[in-house]
Amino acid sequence: MTAPFADRLADAVDRAGNPCVVGLDPHLAHLPEEFSAARDAAAPRAERARAIGDFLVEIVDACAGRVPAVKPQSAFFEAFGADGVHEFERVVAASKDAGLLVVGDVKRGDIGSTAAAYAQAFLTGLEGQDPRTLCDAITVNPYLGTDSIAPFVDACRAADAGLYVLVRTSNPSSAELQAVEAGADGETVSDLVADAVVGWGSELVGERGWSSIGAVVGATHPDELARLRERMPRTPLLLPGYGAQGAGAADVAGGFRDGLHGALVNSSRGILFAGSKRPEMHWKDAAVEAMESMASELRAVLLER
Amino acid sequence: MTAPFADRLADAVDRAGNPCVVGLDPHLAHLPEEFSAARDAAAPRAERARAIGDFLVEIVDACAGRVPAVKPQSAFFEAFGADGVHEFERVVAASKDAGLLVVGDVKRGDIGSTAAAYAQAFLTGLEGQDPRTLCDAITVNPYLGTDSIAPFVDACRAADAGLYVLVRTSNPSSAELQAVEAGADGETVSDLVADAVVGWGSELVGERGWSSIGAVVGATHPDELARLRERMPRTPLLLPGYGAQGAGAADVAGGFRDGLHGALVNSSRGILFAGSKRPEMHWKDAAVEAMESMASELRAVLLER
Repeated sequence: MTAPFADRLADAVDRAGNPCVVGLDPHLAHLPEEFSAARDAAAPRAERARAIGDFLVEIVDACAGRVPAVKPQSAFFEAFGADGVHEFERVVAASKDAGLLVVGDVKRGDIGSTAAAYAQAFLTGLEGQDPRTLCDAITVNPYLGTDSIAPFVDACRAADAGLYVLVRTSNPSSAELQAVEAGADGETVSDLVADAVVGWGSELVGERGWSSIGAVVGATHPDELARLRERMPRTPLLLPGYGAQGAGAADVAGGFRDGLHGALVNSSRGILFAGSKRPEMHWKDAAVEAMESMASELRAVLLER
Repeated sequence: MTAPFADRLADAVDRAGNPCVVGLDPHLAHLPEEFSAARDAAAPRAERARAIGDFLVEIVDACAGRVPAVKPQSAFFEAFGADGVHEFERVVAASKDAGLLVVGDVKRGDIGSTAAAYAQAFLTGLEGQDPRTLCDAITVNPYLGTDSIAPFVDACRAADAGLYVLVRTSNPSSAELQAVEAGADGETVSDLVADAVVGWGSELVGERGWSSIGAVVGATHPDELARLRERMPRTPLLLPGYGAQGAGAADVAGGFRDGLHGALVNSSRGILFAGSKRPEMHWKDAAVEAMESMASELRAVLLER
């Protein structure tokens, strides 16, 4: 890698002309029929995992040149154990080969040398490891505090990688802890995490003005999104919740600055399984159409402001 | 499996006569010389991972009959990608075969179907999966709230498994979020999580009076430990921080009720690498000695109160 994650991301958004990230969440029940081996409980685990990988490599091919990034969700691979993780590595490498940035959605969080081992797993790699199998950025969980994030930040500096720290997630229960008032000024737990994210990323601001240490903020909370964008002015955001979870282009607009920059908007099921609502089309054509339609919706809102 | 995790845990503590859990954190730098292939950057990744697995299978053999449980730390396996995860599965199976309970230290946390996929990966398994490769319990992160924990609780009910939810961790930065005052009564974020843990576990209380939904509380905060034990009266605790992180037997006593019950005390490096301080002994004998010495220290404090 040759430039900080933040700069590579800004360039990738410019090249693609949109800020979409395609979430690679291979729900078994929705996989197109030609990959139904993944659902066959009688098939060997490696074969089932391979069918998932085959589907996603096709999706990655559909993404190439159309979006800046993909976001593989580790859980769906880990459900197939070592065979699933083998496919995770294959899908990451295929994405790199296709010129896509890879945001590994792993939500790891642990302390000291354990966090360093996770950073090695996803960002820095073993000595001599093929860099195609490593992520450009990963999601991490802040519950353990600064000494749990520092090893990941060090890894970002060493490997020109990035982080997206969970600040305010898109799910209904996210308010239980994240929206709790903490301290005298009416600040929430999310606000404290947001301030910490700014601090963690302050030394990793690239030439385009963005830090490589980003934040996850659910697109399902538009008001908070605008507020958190102000609070974290140089922090790239990752916005889940578009499409299947109910948020639209207008809801995410508050996360952006400077046209298409400042945020990536994730859609997973809405793109991967677009074919299930378009039986007349091939599933891959339906995925491309869904991607292009999401891109134009976002462009319309973001570039016409 | 034939009984709720909480009951199997209480029985295992009775059988072993101590509440120790051995943390399987295979730091490369400390591995005994005969497993130095793990450190050889020129060796194939699978071979390096296998050396780690070989070491841990020996440690598991040393643990058998001496302690109730082991706690493999996923990060150190994941650093070796799919090959490492293969060894994780092998070490889990060896532990089950040795009659040990397995607490997978994975600290996962995600929402809805993603959490369900993590629960499948570690607790419930694929249809027909060898149950020896599954954990009896795992650690999880509460930052995303109830809807991120519910799929894990459902998995515990279905598979007689258990959880340890991060409440107050042992690291210095843990106070940044966890000790923040949240709400008018001087309660902390950890207190809110503790109350939530009690609620999540209320329907999974076994015959021995303990829930299968537990909590991680650092042994490095003895006062808070006693307070949180009161706040979560039926919640089994997992106490990291003993030994290398500075806590002793007296520091963990507040986590227990009813003799040896109510908590597991973790030691990792202090046992795995005891041989590095005892060059005159075989590393495995040193590990056994360290385990037995930890067990008697805890028995002395807990049974003589």
